[in-house]
Amino acid sequence: MAADPRFHPSAGPLTLGQLAAAAGIALPAGVEGRLFTSVATLQSAGPDDVSFLEGRRWLPSLRESRAGAVVLAEANAHAVPEGAVALVSPAPVLAFARIATLLHPPAVASGAIHPMAVVGKGAVIGEGCEIGPYAVVEAGAVLGPRCIVGPHAHIGPNCVFGADCRILSHVTATHCIAGDRVTLNPGARIGSEGFGFATARTGEHVTVPQLGRVLLGDDVEVGANSCIDRGSGNDTVIGSGTRLDDQVMIGHNVRTGRGCVLVAQAGISGSTVLGDFVVVAAQAGISGHLNIGSRARVGAKSGVINDVPEGMDVFGFPAIPAREGLRVAAAMRKLGRSKAAARMPETKSD
Amino acid sequence: MAADPRFHPSAGPLTLGQLAAAAGIALPAGVEGRLFTSVATLQSAGPDDVSFLEGRRWLPSLRESRAGAVVLAEANAHAVPEGAVALVSPAPVLAFARIATLLHPPAVASGAIHPMAVVGKGAVIGEGCEIGPYAVVEAGAVLGPRCIVGPHAHIGPNCVFGADCRILSHVTATHCIAGDRVTLNPGARIGSEGFGFATARTGEHVTVPQLGRVLLGDDVEVGANSCIDRGSGNDTVIGSGTRLDDQVMIGHNVRTGRGCVLVAQAGISGSTVLGDFVVVAAQAGISGHLNIGSRARVGAKSGVINDVPEGMDVFGFPAIPAREGLRVAAAMRKLGRSKAAARMPETKSD
Amino acid sequence: MAADPRFHPSAGPLTLGQLAAAAGIALPAGVEGRLFTSVATLQSAGPDDVSFLEGRRWLPSLRESRAGAVVLAEANAHAVPEGAVALVSPAPVLAFARIATLLHPPAVASGAIHPMAVVGKGAVIGEGCEIGPYAVVEAGAVLGPRCIVGPHAHIGPNCVFGADCRILSHVTATHCIAGDRVTLNPGARIGSEGFGFATARTGEHVTVPQLGRVLLGDDVEVGANSCIDRGSGNDTVIGSGTRLDDQVMIGHNVRTGRGCVLVAQAGISGSTVLGDFVVVAAQAGISGHLNIGSRARVGAKSGVINDVPEGMDVFGFPAIPAREGLRVAAAMRKLGRSKAAARMPETKSD
Repeated sequence: MAADPRFHPSAGPLTLGQLAAAAGIALPAGVEGRLFTSVATLQSAGPDDVSFLEGRRWLPSLRESRAGAVVLAEANAHAVPEGAVALVSPAPVLAFARIATLLHPPAVASGAIHPMAVVGKGAVIGEGCEIGPYAVVEAGAVLGPRCIVGPHAHIGPNCVFGADCRILSHVTATHCIAGDRVTLNPGARIGSEGFGFATARTGEHVTVPQLGRVLLGDDVEVGANSCIDRGSGNDTVIGSGTRLDDQVMIGHNVRTGRGCVLVAQAGISGSTVLGDFVVVAAQAGISGHLNIGSRARVGAKSGVINDVPEGMDVFGFPAIPAREGLRVAAAMRKLGRSKAAARMPETKSD
Repeated sequence: MAADPRFHPSAGPLTLGQLAAAAGIALPAGVEGRLFTSVATLQSAGPDDVSFLEGRRWLPSLRESRAGAVVLAEANAHAVPEGAVALVSPAPVLAFARIATLLHPPAVASGAIHPMAVVGKGAVIGEGCEIGPYAVVEAGAVLGPRCIVGPHAHIGPNCVFGADCRILSHVTATHCIAGDRVTLNPGARIGSEGFGFATARTGEHVTVPQLGRVLLGDDVEVGANSCIDRGSGNDTVIGSGTRLDDQVMIGHNVRTGRGCVLVAQAGISGSTVLGDFVVVAAQAGISGHLNIGSRARVGAKSGVINDVPEGMDVFGFPAIPAREGLRVAAAMRKLGRSKAAARMPETKSD
Repeated sequence: MAADPRFHPSAGPLTLGQLAAAAGIALPAGVEGRLFTSVATLQSAGPDDVSFLEGRRWLPSLRESRAGAVVLAEANAHAVPEGAVALVSPAPVLAFARIATLLHPPAVASGAIHPMAVVGKGAVIGEGCEIGPYAVVEAGAVLGPRCIVGPHAHIGPNCVFGADCRILSHVTATHCIAGDRVTLNPGARIGSEGFGFATARTGEHVTVPQLGRVLLGDDVEVGANSCIDRGSGNDTVIGSGTRLDDQVMIGHNVRTGRGCVLVAQAGISGSTVLGDFVVVAAQAGISGHLNIGSRARVGAKSGVINDVPEGMDVFGFPAIPAREGLRVAAAMRKLGRSKAAARMPETKSD
């Protein structure tokens, strides 16, 4: 089955020639004119669908697939069943992404401002913007052209968004300046008060006013229910092309470079700085005031409490170089299997 | 004190006969006509309240309770104070649940559609539905009879919900098809874009369109601020009777069986498959593309990186069989107590 | 650069005399009349800004700062550059918080009820309250004077809030009674159904009605997208002055004392009791039905499965006294470095 047209209408049919061109794929002769309407998995694709081989473990599915065309690496092209076109690419995922985007392009702003939206005094709504029911764009906010503002989205006073942004339903964005093509998924909270206070001798916690902003670069994407707190004095900065999954938490004054990837439920504490293309896997945490070098990668569930040099993979809690971390895990597992270890005397070795 | 009637109005008074029948409890003679209005803890119950003994540690509270009746296991019935009725059940929690539900039934759809709700073109609202202020039901969506849609809830185009669903305040549900009696608690996000992209050589992340759906079985419950992303091509599927606590994250293409239980802040990465009645405890994480067998249980904070066979309990990170995992924990603790271990030479054993 | 006036307007200029008085700081002669408009970091401050030295590592920035005045400890006063006034305080963070609050006071309720807000029958709105667009205050709810209710906030039937509360955008608050000066940040969920059910032999999960409330003391602050479930029978209670960061999860029947601090993504399972001034660091979890003594501290990512005595620091999973926990971490790290450990025979020692 191709994508459900109730939710994902097709822009097709498109010719295989059009699709291959978008993906930089050379076609065998005589197939350019074949028509395709959607994409689908190997198991569910039909002759009008382009499919995709994710890895060698799916070769059996490939052999039995009814797909009209399949994107894959050259090494696997031999397994494409008769009648299907092999779309050979050195970067199959990327090529498939381009083809799928052509057949199912992202929604385009309709240009309609719903009568049940509130637009505050002096707010500037760019040409072609779509604003959904019950959205609130407060006074002085600026939206670039062709932005989509979903139902119930709340854009605070004087916020700025560039062109082609998507601010989806139930988003709160305050104290925030964003570039072009920024996507905020449902329930994301941008610009909330950071967790800053001083504790008096009486035990009373006194708020330190959080007087910074959130700056989002171009092409930033923020997952559902993720939070990016505004800076306390400096700004919180998310570099261009950085992507946050759902339920990620970014503390005040954090700065990320370009193209970072923060997977679900990860958290970055206040004032930590990430270089470019840093990857933080799911449920990992990074302490405050650290420097994480460009292209460093933090393993899932890890807890980073020291700076990480450029390009290093770390793992565990406290996070250590991944090779050592994996050895720790292996040794720990052995401890679990060794009755002697479990019986190890507690004080004798003192 | 019984339940606060401002928040939990009573459907009572009901007779003990009615309550006992609902719970499958045999009554001693002569008490069927006693009237009860609410339920309460042992410490706060009065003569009009049914109470409940959760375990033997609460026996002292039982002896001093002023409750009119107490649900408990037979072994503890001897401790019920004079004047109170012992409601003996082989499954006391279940019996208490049935009694409490009779006295405090869940809210029923009022049948009113608030004038400040937006219902899109072609949407079908089932008989008796209640739709709250500022709710948005988009074009083509279908709600079965007696659904409750809370304030500000957002139901996307063409979504389908069965009968008696509760879609509470601030929910976003898009790209989603749900069965009967589904409950989405406040702020739940169903059908958001999964975290799918390909990275070009330039470092640019290119979105892989997420063209699947979310399918929710009957009786699924989703906690506050939890997220279930839609599939990338296949669907994300939550089996009937599965319950998610608050702040749970379900990645794209995950499939769960029937009756699974996912406790607060747990996360399941993309394309992992859970069998029936799997339990994932709080803050646990499961990597992508794994198979977790039916009735397996994953301990709190564990990180699962391998398949788990049916019925196995696992624990730790990386998660291992729970028995071994507990030995690891014991051995680790001993390492902490042993000065020698802390002094263990780093390189000598090479 | 001082705080961006688009987002953080200044109440100044104020004299240094006014500011110093608020912070309990003694001034050198002749500077009381100097005027200040904002606060800023050492690097970005100009002559109209008060700045702040957070610790000795920033002394080089202090020496080059153009700030007009700097709050700091006496020991560092020598490094204040010529022309800047040293504002010496024994509690510099606290003093700076008071000065910043004077220059950038929190928003005050405007007294306006937006025409696009829904206020239910019998709801009582205190004098001077501000209610934003699309907010819903249901029947019978009570708001004290000068509360701010943000856009799309949802206050359930019969909820009670004291004076000067801030219930920001997209909050859901139901089944809840709150004191004065309570702040609920965007997307917080107060009073949702707790995760309570009994499982029948068939595997069916049967809801145990959640018939309690949430009680919030004075000065409680709840971070963005955090969740506090209502009690199952008893109440969930958050003590006065307690602060929750973003994405914190509090299960049903939890009780915290005064002034607790729960950092981002921490979770407390049902029925656990925290004393006063307990600190739970980021991503930590505490099992249910435990007692955590006053002034205990739980380290980041720790998992607490036993009671913690008053004043104890614990760390790790399972959490143990922090000193031991750190030794475990050190020993584990060494295991990772030792090839012998990784080769340790699995069964021989049996």
